[in-house]
Amino acid sequence: MGKYAIGVDFGTLSGRTVLVDIANGAELATSILDYPHGVMSDALPGGRTLGVDWALQHPQDYLDVLESTVPEALRSSGVKPEEIVGVGIDFTACTPLPVTEDGTPLCFLEEFEDEPHAYVKLWKHHAAQPYANRLNEIAAARGEPWLARYGGKISSEWLIPKIWQIFAEAPEIYARMAHFVECADWVVWMLTGAPSRNACLAGYKAMWSKREGYPPSDFFEALDPGLRDVTRQKLSIPIRTQGECVGGICPEMARRTGLNAGTPVATGNVDAHVSVAGVGITGPGKMLAIMGTSTCHMLMSEREHDVPGICGCVEDGILPGFFGYEAGQPCVGDHFAWLAHNAVPERYFAEAAQAGLDIHAYLQRLAEKLEPGESGLLALDWWNGNRSVLVDADLTGMMLGMTLQTKAEEMYRALVEATAYGTRMIIENFETHGVPIEQFIAAGGIADKSPWAMQVYADVIRKPIRISGSAHGTALSAAVFGAVAAGARRGGFDSIAEAAAAMGKLRDVEYSPDPARAAVYDALYAEFKALHDYFGRGVNDVMKRLKQMRIHALSSRER
Amino acid sequence: MGKYAIGVDFGTLSGRTVLVDIANGAELATSILDYPHGVMSDALPGGRTLGVDWALQHPQDYLDVLESTVPEALRSSGVKPEEIVGVGIDFTACTPLPVTEDGTPLCFLEEFEDEPHAYVKLWKHHAAQPYANRLNEIAAARGEPWLARYGGKISSEWLIPKIWQIFAEAPEIYARMAHFVECADWVVWMLTGAPSRNACLAGYKAMWSKREGYPPSDFFEALDPGLRDVTRQKLSIPIRTQGECVGGICPEMARRTGLNAGTPVATGNVDAHVSVAGVGITGPGKMLAIMGTSTCHMLMSEREHDVPGICGCVEDGILPGFFGYEAGQPCVGDHFAWLAHNAVPERYFAEAAQAGLDIHAYLQRLAEKLEPGESGLLALDWWNGNRSVLVDADLTGMMLGMTLQTKAEEMYRALVEATAYGTRMIIENFETHGVPIEQFIAAGGIADKSPWAMQVYADVIRKPIRISGSAHGTALSAAVFGAVAAGARRGGFDSIAEAAAAMGKLRDVEYSPDPARAAVYDALYAEFKALHDYFGRGVNDVMKRLKQMRIHALSSRER
Repeated sequence: MGKYAIGVDFGTLSGRTVLVDIANGAELATSILDYPHGVMSDALPGGRTLGVDWALQHPQDYLDVLESTVPEALRSSGVKPEEIVGVGIDFTACTPLPVTEDGTPLCFLEEFEDEPHAYVKLWKHHAAQPYANRLNEIAAARGEPWLARYGGKISSEWLIPKIWQIFAEAPEIYARMAHFVECADWVVWMLTGAPSRNACLAGYKAMWSKREGYPPSDFFEALDPGLRDVTRQKLSIPIRTQGECVGGICPEMARRTGLNAGTPVATGNVDAHVSVAGVGITGPGKMLAIMGTSTCHMLMSEREHDVPGICGCVEDGILPGFFGYEAGQPCVGDHFAWLAHNAVPERYFAEAAQAGLDIHAYLQRLAEKLEPGESGLLALDWWNGNRSVLVDADLTGMMLGMTLQTKAEEMYRALVEATAYGTRMIIENFETHGVPIEQFIAAGGIADKSPWAMQVYADVIRKPIRISGSAHGTALSAAVFGAVAAGARRGGFDSIAEAAAAMGKLRDVEYSPDPARAAVYDALYAEFKALHDYFGRGVNDVMKRLKQMRIHALSSRER
Repeated sequence: MGKYAIGVDFGTLSGRTVLVDIANGAELATSILDYPHGVMSDALPGGRTLGVDWALQHPQDYLDVLESTVPEALRSSGVKPEEIVGVGIDFTACTPLPVTEDGTPLCFLEEFEDEPHAYVKLWKHHAAQPYANRLNEIAAARGEPWLARYGGKISSEWLIPKIWQIFAEAPEIYARMAHFVECADWVVWMLTGAPSRNACLAGYKAMWSKREGYPPSDFFEALDPGLRDVTRQKLSIPIRTQGECVGGICPEMARRTGLNAGTPVATGNVDAHVSVAGVGITGPGKMLAIMGTSTCHMLMSEREHDVPGICGCVEDGILPGFFGYEAGQPCVGDHFAWLAHNAVPERYFAEAAQAGLDIHAYLQRLAEKLEPGESGLLALDWWNGNRSVLVDADLTGMMLGMTLQTKAEEMYRALVEATAYGTRMIIENFETHGVPIEQFIAAGGIADKSPWAMQVYADVIRKPIRISGSAHGTALSAAVFGAVAAGARRGGFDSIAEAAAAMGKLRDVEYSPDPARAAVYDALYAEFKALHDYFGRGVNDVMKRLKQMRIHALSSRER
């Protein structure tokens, strides 16, 4: 009898299960389900339209992932349910959901099915920006000590701005919810029947810390008197640390997934943070970048540094014993998908089909023939705002250098380069503030599929790049925590370090900076930096004013 | 027997002939030929590749236009050759060509057919920018008095930078050419056998003036000792004024076009300047904008004002008795064509076909549903550089405000709006410097085909807009000059004013600014202006540096 763990990774557009041999990390089966409802940014399923910057999901999609991909992974691997020692899951974040006392999503109730605030607010729901702005003003004015841990700014993507938006805009939903839960925790709750909150998400997305807990109620009262007791009233589920076993699979979910009832399930985790274990990182000096629709950057240090513009610094937030730092770019692959969907002419698709390539591979084939600087283009990678180092969802995209000769593959390359400049900005910001980086490890879809993009990144950031050894590294990493939840007693591991050593892996390839191309990129990065600061640091707030005009025009239309 | 005139308009992509009743301007027939060689910006017909910013044409295409469209217009109208009182032609400018003593284009000689410099340099050939830059430096340093007439800067599109480029890069072509002629004059030469230079082009594009002639030879010597006698050696054909009769159709061209030999042919003219007569403008206060791939702005005043950043102020340059001012935007319809060709996805074309619309009409149908500000986008209309008021071909396009929701029709609208902001910049620049504008009259393809674009322009510029009464207004206007060349004695008119009164026409429609939309555009225009000055007036020369890097990358590739 073998010993296997299951990891389920809930991404932005789909969920995937991998079934992993815990002795060596070998992946025996993978199964993916695209979410039936996808990302809802225009309207609810019933037709109700959404405002600017909304991004919702339907929680039924997550249950569909479990009921479809777990049985499929078992079936296709031939592994028996009794050979599964544990299950780990990870999720996008902050992706929270209002639920009743027993965990029923409010959007499952007929009375709320046309109420946008009853649904999952996806991480990239940015309509809470006004609340984040107000929160940041108040926290700064009060000199809240915890603010420095989050780079001096709380993102509109995080939990408190999102629940404040519900409180202000849909008081009946606020009143009706018993808990506002991260979907990472909700899925674990549905699997086990046991409610839990995980320390990583509480720390990175809800301003909780191991030493101080949540911010005090007088801070929340300063936001709005009605929010005074928000943490006690809506965030009261006990917090559990990463790798703990929350419980066993409940009988109902055992029936639906084909797993044995009682199989250990680990505390929920965040897709980015969970992944560090899957590439074998066990300490400081190595940055892991999970590059997909967006990019998250994970880094550890023995000490706590105040680094401005990061997403958070949480003690034990990534691995026990270290301060875990997170930074991020909210739009990476999404840029390329936007371009392919909105700004690439038909002939490229025909030529791609003829070459037997998908559109991204075809655009890359054309783009990689160009030298740095040859397109004459420069972009700011802000199609979905800027998370680090500006922490401002109201920034928007920019491209310049277009001529009548500009072609789609040049714009494609410019967007890839822009995301690399954004990454260099984050790296330099960490290093300037005392957290050095020796190696850059990339995981996720882009790292996996695009050697060309990885070479561009190496040339831009001037650091060697290693790649995650798994095409499903996040799900693999979730499986690592599943094996830890089991513990040695039930066939797994007793520590994350042991599990990571056995199951984590890197590909046998390294991308090294090319000196000539890196020199050209130094010059282009200097131009990027100047425009980054001009548009992003308040010299010319044109992007914010245009966004306000857009919101005004759209709301005038609705009236 | 009726009395008719023929006008032939040579545009950027095609040539068209209209056959016009000189009693009332009624257009009896139109015939168009797309240039077989189009615009050559990548390679010569023989395969030799061209550099960055090159734009050439093949003079055979112009002869093809005459031999195809004139007979077709005669045929389809049923008008007899003896009923044609005169012929006028107009051309893009500055579009010059090196020829032998008898007018043979050097590119017709076998020895030069693979030599780029032997071909027509189309107006938008921008590869002479380094020569224009040097010329402007030298002229400014010497305090050349004529410089103020051209807004303080000579464009790389004009004749002297273009012939200097030939002198420097292809000395054998420079040595071999007997004349460097505007194609407007070359076509008249081919039609009549009589060489002539027209005063409008000599004035606007070759720094000639009625009172002072060309700049003195010591100025040209300062550019390069070898250019000292350039005007005497290469620009020596006598200058004739607008509306003069250069000669009659020669027997050979009578045979090829179906016109009678001896039919009077007017001095060559520029497409933009010729058109003033065709909309009935006879004096100051009315700006004519010819809106096609690019836009030219024509305006007259009784006095000479130094207006910075215009293309030229030429005495008698538009109509006798006035100082004629020209300004321009080198890329207007070309923006929309670029977008449609390079950045509109296939589904739009399918939907357009289903709606029975061409892609531009379909994008407009979507774009016109948006309110000002609703797209959240702002562009600088510099895909082909900026002519007025910055006179800088090294500037490039910019767009900002993009999000993951941005759609093609929003970018389309942003580009239309950007060209309108560029026009407002030009209008304000004239008014600030003493040349008032009461009415704006638009002609050309965009004015003719897009009521929506005209309303956007009216809202942006806050002035009423009238539209040329002819869909072929430029060719009609050329016909006006054909009728003037005939003179009353041969059945035409003795003055441009008389001919313009009889044949010129405006459509019975006026676009008035909408106060609410104009107010939003005021705010957007303020943002445009700030970025215009930031990128265009030297605060951040990133566009120029990127262009240099592009040129460097391309030339490294060739080596």
